[in-house]
Amino acid sequence: MNKIITIGREFGSGGRELGRRLSEELGIAYYDQEIIGEIAKRTSLSEQYVQTIVEHQPLFSFPIHVGRSFYPSASPVLEQTMAVYQGQAQIITEMAEKSDCVIVGRCADYILKEMKPFRIFVYADMESKMKRCREKAPEGETLTERELKQKISAMDKKRAKYYEFYTGYTWGNKLNFDLCINTTQTVIKEMVPVLANLFR
Amino acid sequence: MNKIITIGREFGSGGRELGRRLSEELGIAYYDQEIIGEIAKRTSLSEQYVQTIVEHQPLFSFPIHVGRSFYPSASPVLEQTMAVYQGQAQIITEMAEKSDCVIVGRCADYILKEMKPFRIFVYADMESKMKRCREKAPEGETLTERELKQKISAMDKKRAKYYEFYTGYTWGNKLNFDLCINTTQTVIKEMVPVLANLFR
Repeated sequence: MNKIITIGREFGSGGRELGRRLSEELGIAYYDQEIIGEIAKRTSLSEQYVQTIVEHQPLFSFPIHVGRSFYPSASPVLEQTMAVYQGQAQIITEMAEKSDCVIVGRCADYILKEMKPFRIFVYADMESKMKRCREKAPEGETLTERELKQKISAMDKKRAKYYEFYTGYTWGNKLNFDLCINTTQTVIKEMVPVLANLFR
Repeated sequence: MNKIITIGREFGSGGRELGRRLSEELGIAYYDQEIIGEIAKRTSLSEQYVQTIVEHQPLFSFPIHVGRSFYPSASPVLEQTMAVYQGQAQIITEMAEKSDCVIVGRCADYILKEMKPFRIFVYADMESKMKRCREKAPEGETLTERELKQKISAMDKKRAKYYEFYTGYTWGNKLNFDLCINTTQTVIKEMVPVLANLFR
C-alpha cells in the first residue's frame, strides 16, 4: 500500500510549508487545496484538456472521473457544494491510489481512512501564527494586529466548519491524528528532515 | 541551558516507556513519578539517608532542600498536599538544573516553563490503551473489559485534576505541548530512535 501522509493545519501555522518540504525530502507527490481545486476545475471543464496537462506533468497522471453526489439535496447550492466535495474526494482517492504522497487539507485524513494514512496536525499559538502571516503577506496588505487576529480566527473557524460538516468529527481533535506538531518554537526547515525519517 | 524533555501522558498510552527509551537513546537522566516520589520521601525522612543513596547513584546526585509551602491553607490535608507538590517541584527543578533529562509526569512542563523544556504529550485510543494495560497487568489481575475501561478513565481524570489544580491549565490541551504523539498504531521501540534525532 502507498505511503500516504495527510496534513491538517491551523491557518498561519506553516502546515503547508511543512507538507511541501516533507514531500520534497521524501521525493513523493504533493497535493494541497489549490492543486486539488485546480485539477477538479479542469476536470469538470474538459476531460481532454486535463489529458493534455497530464501528458506534460507525469506526477499528476490520472484518468479522473468525477464522482457524482447521490445526497438528497434540499437546495441547488448545497447540491453543488456536495458535488465539489465529492469531486475532490474522488481526485484525492485516485491520487493516493496512484503513488506515495503528502496531501494538505481537504479532509484527506477522513477521505482516505481506509488506506490508513499517517495523519499529522500542525498548529501554533496565535502570536506565532500572526508573525508567519506577516512574513508571507501579499505586498501592500496593511491589516492591524486586531484585523489579522480576526482573519486567522475566521479562517480556522471556516476550516473547522468544513471539516465537521463533511466528517462529523471535531476539527483538530488530537485523537484523530497520529502526530500533532506545534510550530510555535520550531524552525520547520530544520525539523522536516528529522520528521521524514519516520517514513523511511 | 540543559536539554529538558517533559512528557505528559494518558494512562496506558506508553508514555513512560517512551520517556524511558528516549532517555536511554539520548544517554540522559530519567525521572518519573515513582522516582521523584521516592526521592522526596527520602529527603523528608533524612537528609543523611539521601546522601548515602546519592553516593551510590551519581546520576541522581543533588543536595536537596525541600521547598516550604507559603500558601494560606484552610486545612492540614491541603497544606500537606501542597507541601508534597512543592517538595517535588523543588526536586524537579534541581534535577533539571543539574543535567539534561527526561521527566515523565508531575506537571514538569509547567514547573520548568522558564527553562523552556520540549514538551511531549503521549496519548492513544481506548482500545489500544486497554491492550497495553492487559499486557503490563500484574499477574492475577482479572478486570473485566468494563472495569479496565473505568480504571483507565479514572486514572486520567485523576491526572487531569492534578494538572489543572496545580497549573490552572487544561490537561492534554495540545497548545501546551510541542509535540503530541498518538501511540495507537505506533511501535514505541521503533519510533523513539527517530524521535531522538530531534534532540541531537
